Amino acid sequence: MPSTDPVIAIVGATGAVGQEFLSILAQRRFPFRDLRLLASSRSAGKTMRCGEREFAVQELTAQVFDGCDLALFSAGASISRQFAPDAVKRGCMVVDNSSAFRMTDGVPLVIPEINEDVLEDLDGPAIIAVPNCSTIIALMAVTPLYDAVGIERMVVSTYQAISGAGAAAVAELEQQARDYAAGKPLQTPIFGRPCLFNVFSHNSAMSEDGYNLEETKMVKETHKIWGDDSVAITATCVRVPVLRAHSESINLTFRKPLSEDDAREILSSAPGVRIVDDRAKNKFPEPIDASGGDDVLVGRIRADYSQPPGMGLNLFVSGDQLRKGAALDAVQIAECVMERRAARV
Amino acid sequence: MPSTDPVIAIVGATGAVGQEFLSILAQRRFPFRDLRLLASSRSAGKTMRCGEREFAVQELTAQVFDGCDLALFSAGASISRQFAPDAVKRGCMVVDNSSAFRMTDGVPLVIPEINEDVLEDLDGPAIIAVPNCSTIIALMAVTPLYDAVGIERMVVSTYQAISGAGAAAVAELEQQARDYAAGKPLQTPIFGRPCLFNVFSHNSAMSEDGYNLEETKMVKETHKIWGDDSVAITATCVRVPVLRAHSESINLTFRKPLSEDDAREILSSAPGVRIVDDRAKNKFPEPIDASGGDDVLVGRIRADYSQPPGMGLNLFVSGDQLRKGAALDAVQIAECVMERRAARV
Repeated sequence: MPSTDPVIAIVGATGAVGQEFLSILAQRRFPFRDLRLLASSRSAGKTMRCGEREFAVQELTAQVFDGCDLALFSAGASISRQFAPDAVKRGCMVVDNSSAFRMTDGVPLVIPEINEDVLEDLDGPAIIAVPNCSTIIALMAVTPLYDAVGIERMVVSTYQAISGAGAAAVAELEQQARDYAAGKPLQTPIFGRPCLFNVFSHNSAMSEDGYNLEETKMVKETHKIWGDDSVAITATCVRVPVLRAHSESINLTFRKPLSEDDAREILSSAPGVRIVDDRAKNKFPEPIDASGGDDVLVGRIRADYSQPPGMGLNLFVSGDQLRKGAALDAVQIAECVMERRAARV
Repeated sequence: MPSTDPVIAIVGATGAVGQEFLSILAQRRFPFRDLRLLASSRSAGKTMRCGEREFAVQELTAQVFDGCDLALFSAGASISRQFAPDAVKRGCMVVDNSSAFRMTDGVPLVIPEINEDVLEDLDGPAIIAVPNCSTIIALMAVTPLYDAVGIERMVVSTYQAISGAGAAAVAELEQQARDYAAGKPLQTPIFGRPCLFNVFSHNSAMSEDGYNLEETKMVKETHKIWGDDSVAITATCVRVPVLRAHSESINLTFRKPLSEDDAREILSSAPGVRIVDDRAKNKFPEPIDASGGDDVLVGRIRADYSQPPGMGLNLFVSGDQLRKGAALDAVQIAECVMERRAARV
């Protein structure tokens, strides 16, 4: 009997998220018949491991999706725009980690723990979008509370890792640490300002209204994922000298009262969420602890006394933006898709 | 004619803020007849410079305040509690940078640009308190808006420098950078977790309600400085791997509408505030730019669309917490005190 395991393509295999795809597929023993690692012609011929097996990187072309069942894209929005519709036409299910299709009508924007049910509507090959990392990390913690009592307003300030800006940005920060240690001047080719020992506004494009794209995404994507435009959201997105994992300070206004204890109870049973909230030891979510893990860490759970009793809460979260904020979310979506395909057979 | 210039004592002269006192006194050509540098017996005999002149450090005792006109304290709350009342009894005006007397009835809590007028009530030697650094940095930017339209609610998340935890903490962070560069494991004697490439909840004492002291101070001190308990305030205070200067993401709800343009106009003429708000160049307040300067930098000034039009604003500020957040504020208070003394003569 021929294997019913899928043929999988990874677009952007050599990038930071691409490498996470390989490690997460192996870790979760995601079954596949073949794996096609796709990148630019520069990387073609290079080999990469997925668990025990080794695969050669191929040049990305439209033809390579022939015979593919599932493609995980993480090579930027323009590559997704160019190749994802083609892949779908060739019968391939696409899970896209870029911003290209997130807000497109009919494209599901999915955090499986939260809105896996929107995949029900899919009938045959299609594009499914992975939300932006900051949105995923915030909503993993906030959605269980939203489901319980509704959210009136959310004020977010982020502490985002440099790796969100790519592998070269990480190398720049690490080089700055070495140069600082050696007493040399810091080189700043990517950001034009030091990352080391500094904090700066998120480097995404800025709109005329003074909000950067990272901030706008959090508002729009949350509305789409919750299917609720009525929630008031404002965000301030900031880069900090952290290698990996984003943190966020989140202030919530509820629609109905929710005590701090009830919020903690709800979060303690939320999938993909781990409470780190030890007041005695001053131990709360830290990016260094979230890095490399699957869970979004949630702590500093405390009633907000600037709002009427029970109506407000403060939270602090940390999550690995390359894993749950990108690759893990995509692989979980792929698992849902495969389960549904298996159920239909 | 004998000099009417004051005899000044600096308590905690060898500490991080103490050294700033010396540099700011010299920079501002603060007149004095004599300078008594006070510290623990360990530092006695050491010499320190103030401008061109050199002074020997003496051991702190109550007697040393005899004949002193003005003392600047920054040696922690317990030293202030032990010696400040004595200094006052001996006829010395005390400007205290610790938390010891900030919330004491009758002790003015002063940011000169904001509430210098409360010094009017002083009659003879007294203790005047310098607010906590995070409070000063926030209020420098927010008070001009409060004065214009009133503040209903303020939600703050901080990005605080390691130097707020003292010189040893800075040395720890710098050593971690050197150890990282050398591929060695990071030593964490002070914080028990790496500062380098990490973010963690502020290290001040945590109350039972889950708020740390830094957060509680911001609420209570703001109420005292504004003389207005009705403003709703909530804060999340976080340490980031920055050597110097605190940053804060501030979300405001106004009592009466204020447009973004009017807010910018008001801030552009606020004393001690400098607008850094270049959207085209993505240039906003950064701790690296605020370090060593006197001004609080304010940017990311933008209408908050999560609130009714004109009723909300987001801001991002950076200020040197050792200067305006501590030593500079104290010296400015001392200048006000001396001016008033001169006016009375």
